[in-house]
Amino acid sequence: MIKAGIVGGTGYTGVELLRLLSKHPEVELAAITSRSDAGTRVSEMFPSLRGRVDIEFVQPSHETLSGCDIVFFATPNGIAMKEAKALLDDGVKVIDLAADFRIKDVSTWEKWYGMTHASPELIEEAVYGLPEVNREEIARARLVANPGCYPTAVQLGFLPLIEEGLVDADQLIADAKSGVSGAGKKAEIGFLFSEASDNFKAYGVSGHRHLPEIRQGLSIAAKKEVGLTFVPHLTPLIRGIHATLYARLEKEADLQKIFEDRYRNEPFVDVMPSGSHPETRSVRGANVCRIAMHRPQGGNTVVILSVIDNLVKGAAGQAVQNMNIMFGFPEIAGIDLVPLLP
Amino acid sequence: MIKAGIVGGTGYTGVELLRLLSKHPEVELAAITSRSDAGTRVSEMFPSLRGRVDIEFVQPSHETLSGCDIVFFATPNGIAMKEAKALLDDGVKVIDLAADFRIKDVSTWEKWYGMTHASPELIEEAVYGLPEVNREEIARARLVANPGCYPTAVQLGFLPLIEEGLVDADQLIADAKSGVSGAGKKAEIGFLFSEASDNFKAYGVSGHRHLPEIRQGLSIAAKKEVGLTFVPHLTPLIRGIHATLYARLEKEADLQKIFEDRYRNEPFVDVMPSGSHPETRSVRGANVCRIAMHRPQGGNTVVILSVIDNLVKGAAGQAVQNMNIMFGFPEIAGIDLVPLLP
Amino acid sequence: MIKAGIVGGTGYTGVELLRLLSKHPEVELAAITSRSDAGTRVSEMFPSLRGRVDIEFVQPSHETLSGCDIVFFATPNGIAMKEAKALLDDGVKVIDLAADFRIKDVSTWEKWYGMTHASPELIEEAVYGLPEVNREEIARARLVANPGCYPTAVQLGFLPLIEEGLVDADQLIADAKSGVSGAGKKAEIGFLFSEASDNFKAYGVSGHRHLPEIRQGLSIAAKKEVGLTFVPHLTPLIRGIHATLYARLEKEADLQKIFEDRYRNEPFVDVMPSGSHPETRSVRGANVCRIAMHRPQGGNTVVILSVIDNLVKGAAGQAVQNMNIMFGFPEIAGIDLVPLLP
Amino acid sequence: MIKAGIVGGTGYTGVELLRLLSKHPEVELAAITSRSDAGTRVSEMFPSLRGRVDIEFVQPSHETLSGCDIVFFATPNGIAMKEAKALLDDGVKVIDLAADFRIKDVSTWEKWYGMTHASPELIEEAVYGLPEVNREEIARARLVANPGCYPTAVQLGFLPLIEEGLVDADQLIADAKSGVSGAGKKAEIGFLFSEASDNFKAYGVSGHRHLPEIRQGLSIAAKKEVGLTFVPHLTPLIRGIHATLYARLEKEADLQKIFEDRYRNEPFVDVMPSGSHPETRSVRGANVCRIAMHRPQGGNTVVILSVIDNLVKGAAGQAVQNMNIMFGFPEIAGIDLVPLLP
Repeated sequence: MIKAGIVGGTGYTGVELLRLLSKHPEVELAAITSRSDAGTRVSEMFPSLRGRVDIEFVQPSHETLSGCDIVFFATPNGIAMKEAKALLDDGVKVIDLAADFRIKDVSTWEKWYGMTHASPELIEEAVYGLPEVNREEIARARLVANPGCYPTAVQLGFLPLIEEGLVDADQLIADAKSGVSGAGKKAEIGFLFSEASDNFKAYGVSGHRHLPEIRQGLSIAAKKEVGLTFVPHLTPLIRGIHATLYARLEKEADLQKIFEDRYRNEPFVDVMPSGSHPETRSVRGANVCRIAMHRPQGGNTVVILSVIDNLVKGAAGQAVQNMNIMFGFPEIAGIDLVPLLP
Repeated sequence: MIKAGIVGGTGYTGVELLRLLSKHPEVELAAITSRSDAGTRVSEMFPSLRGRVDIEFVQPSHETLSGCDIVFFATPNGIAMKEAKALLDDGVKVIDLAADFRIKDVSTWEKWYGMTHASPELIEEAVYGLPEVNREEIARARLVANPGCYPTAVQLGFLPLIEEGLVDADQLIADAKSGVSGAGKKAEIGFLFSEASDNFKAYGVSGHRHLPEIRQGLSIAAKKEVGLTFVPHLTPLIRGIHATLYARLEKEADLQKIFEDRYRNEPFVDVMPSGSHPETRSVRGANVCRIAMHRPQGGNTVVILSVIDNLVKGAAGQAVQNMNIMFGFPEIAGIDLVPLLP
Repeated sequence: MIKAGIVGGTGYTGVELLRLLSKHPEVELAAITSRSDAGTRVSEMFPSLRGRVDIEFVQPSHETLSGCDIVFFATPNGIAMKEAKALLDDGVKVIDLAADFRIKDVSTWEKWYGMTHASPELIEEAVYGLPEVNREEIARARLVANPGCYPTAVQLGFLPLIEEGLVDADQLIADAKSGVSGAGKKAEIGFLFSEASDNFKAYGVSGHRHLPEIRQGLSIAAKKEVGLTFVPHLTPLIRGIHATLYARLEKEADLQKIFEDRYRNEPFVDVMPSGSHPETRSVRGANVCRIAMHRPQGGNTVVILSVIDNLVKGAAGQAVQNMNIMFGFPEIAGIDLVPLLP
Repeated sequence: MIKAGIVGGTGYTGVELLRLLSKHPEVELAAITSRSDAGTRVSEMFPSLRGRVDIEFVQPSHETLSGCDIVFFATPNGIAMKEAKALLDDGVKVIDLAADFRIKDVSTWEKWYGMTHASPELIEEAVYGLPEVNREEIARARLVANPGCYPTAVQLGFLPLIEEGLVDADQLIADAKSGVSGAGKKAEIGFLFSEASDNFKAYGVSGHRHLPEIRQGLSIAAKKEVGLTFVPHLTPLIRGIHATLYARLEKEADLQKIFEDRYRNEPFVDVMPSGSHPETRSVRGANVCRIAMHRPQGGNTVVILSVIDNLVKGAAGQAVQNMNIMFGFPEIAGIDLVPLLP
């Protein structure tokens, strides 16, 4: 049993971590912090956890957290970059679910996130926590940058094509649709039920923070800069991302076989039969990415459909997967969940 | 490990049983039948079960099912009453998730369900599977009638008041709201997304089949016929029942204590602090009934709020709970689930 | 043509007033105020009004508003009571869509709304704007208190029974369900899509501000204090209120006839055939209250089902109806809308 | 006043036609037919039309319909092609809201729709009813083929670019998302609330019937065969289509100006300011297409966002617009509707 701490546990990734860790066979939940809600019982804020999590939110403090073996930052961007260093120095492993350590180029990060990075020296050390790409580095890491939700769905969908050099990497298109929980538990007008229900819209077409993250990952795979158009949309569901990916095929290949080979040993990527239409609900509550391929009318445009639960494989579940890898636990420990359908 | 069979596994209670049994530590899923979909892989119909359930639907046959230790009927009303006898004779235990054995008075059953009962001799033997009332009888039962979804939420909410004789049992009101999955996976216009979404309505006000079932249960507890007005409503959510119960208090008492005492040892009933407002999502996907009490303005009208997931504590979860009791497994085996929130 | 002004037009009742007034044959929209959004074009905030409303939000000022023939307050509680006097003194008629003038007893109002009333002298003059009760007084009024959404649905459902003295007025129960837009366009966590979608809950069971308002209206009709239990619920739809009303019948009567007689000449109350189940979507976007009656199992509990669109007959539509009456326009002018279904 | 008939009025396009025509100043609703529901009052099936439409569904017959000035076919594909001829011969104008006359190439139509065409001689005469392209032909037409919902949104978005030859017409991508009412009022499992709610998926990626229709329209505009990848998705809203269109720019141009010029005189196309994100709810219930353009990161990929209400500008509203043009009524008569928001 290891001791785990969560910084900033009142949001959706926080409560999802609690759901997963409360049943994890190797983890004791040692501390969960919240500046605004210290003193409140976790189960009072989240009645779904009554009888499951019997601790209170506490003020964040180094003392509390440095006794943990691992600390998850489920905080807004810009917190982990200030606090990770001291924990690492005390031998605590850190997984940041925010974006602080995802982008290797500091100036790119600072441009997109509008902040000066507080610990650029840690960026290089941080491992990008996409296990399907970096499993071995994650196993050795002290500090893991957990990927964004869109970047998880989009990269897992494009990677086999890019790695094999099958498509024109200058003209990739990712048309992605997210459930509203991806926006977090923020009291903003635009995410009210009466605004977001029975409505569909694109947003951030001119530029979304996940664009440089996806581009970085795909460029590493392509071994050159890729060209990507990324259009996110808000769709009226709570959980789920559906990425519809378009690329121009430049070489003939057995695409289905390439995907199946690429992900054969991955416990959390499910390559569906060619021509399938994966649904977001088929991964609801579970740490899975389901992928299917299409070549409409046999043309040279490849269409990849990739779905995840943004709070699980797109956030908390992937974080636990990374923790399992970092500590040598079975990779599926605590996250071997069956999706909730209907 | 016991062998379990499911008859009629293509509906929502069927797939929910599959979700639960696929992870149950004491159960091997031996057979699942469907007349219309025999030969189809379960995971093809329910992609959420890919990698979880690797069998096909088969034609129902006595041979297949009689090799099981337990058979669940997740069928429409009127099937189990024809097929249970032969299985029981072969030593197979049976849990019917439909209504065939819920009503003790045959003529009442025949009136409400519009059929002649095919095995009235089994009705007396059948145990009504509400563990909070009949745990010991369930433990000894060969045949369990799993309660309806509304009856579970309404009875658990009213029982402490009725058993203690605190309220006027002639004038009970149950205003109940159900998610749409309660209607089953039936291709009917009224349950289409475009009909049921962004809409709210009552139905069956003149008489709903769950009325005699609830009345039977409460009358047993009251040791006399109760008077009940039951109004069900359809609300645009997938899973969840919220029962708002009204009764006139006839004696003063510490209601909160009475509820807490009544359910202290129940693993799946959660009495919340007085004045709470339980939400359906706080039990989503979990085998729990959460209850809270109110006495508005200190008057003599008691308001009880009771929520369940209609597919879990209202159907498949309660069926597994009954199976656990029947076979002497830990009562929480396989159903110790954390609700999915948000 | 009269000139109309709207104070506080950025919320849901504001935009609904704009939708209605922009097509009203007798009204010119002269001014719409907003402290926070002055200078913004209305159609920029509400793209649905592009090409329909070509003015900007302006700072509220007496100068702007005193040039109007009528001013609607679509503000939070506590604003109209401060500003109505000066407008009335200048000959401007006022309709308050908030609660400032709804409750005749000042101390009751102050208790429930937690404020000192700024112009108690206007309370007596103000006419409660339920046309089905006070049409003649509204026609003569300078100041109309537009009813709350729940109070409209609940009173219209109970009134015929109460006025005829048919039921036990000491034990009325109103179990009411509201769509989320009833909470207004407020950035609060509880009304986020990810909180309110796929969820159902009661709230304010211990006491909701609409309770004294309903009690006042029903007590006037009963000519004595009534006893009312009022339980509001939040249901995942944008628009709509469904009130399920319970009362004990004390005299036999032809209830259907009584309702039909009561509302025969009402343009905006639709008494449906006995046994109907009115749906909220059947009034979506329209200024209608649909009502149906039931006597389950022929017993002495009467069940009334009453539905409205909370933003139309429950707010802006009723306000326009009141304006029409005040100015002698045809009562249906501008609000003769066909519901949007599906 | 002209007399209008509707064939097959029980579906969603039927009830939407009823909503619009019941308030149209130039139209008397003379007959509405339904084989299955003849004898039922329209307002019994659609309570939203109580007090609005006071006729019954009748059996379809030539006698009934030939007395009309115009007949709308709101039927499944394959009906109008059999019945239009006789009506036209009797001097009745016809608008088919199904697909029978949309595709000019008979063999293409027969391949995609899996039927032999019953009146190929009418295909040439039929005018494709997209007023923004064919207004003059529509004015002279006896027979109008009302466009599909996706084709309306996609063509209006692409047309200015194609007509001006600004983009590579060989590599167009249309990623389109539709509300569930687009599937019609069909009792199919996949469109149940419990299946389609809280879920998002693509469908028909290998080939959707609207593909040849869109390709035909764009090819005419391009004066050559275009290459189009079309991926439709099902999204959990009742009404609304959001088309996200991608094209490669081949020439520099002031795109905003080109769109504004193209649609300057169109009453039902709204070109929003560059960089806008049109929402489906901004057109809910209204006969409008709103369009906005983006060039992410200033690259050469153009992204067009185009939204309509699939039942209005995508079906019944456009049909009424075509009728207005055919009979010389003001084009906005009866369809000058303000969207319902929220």
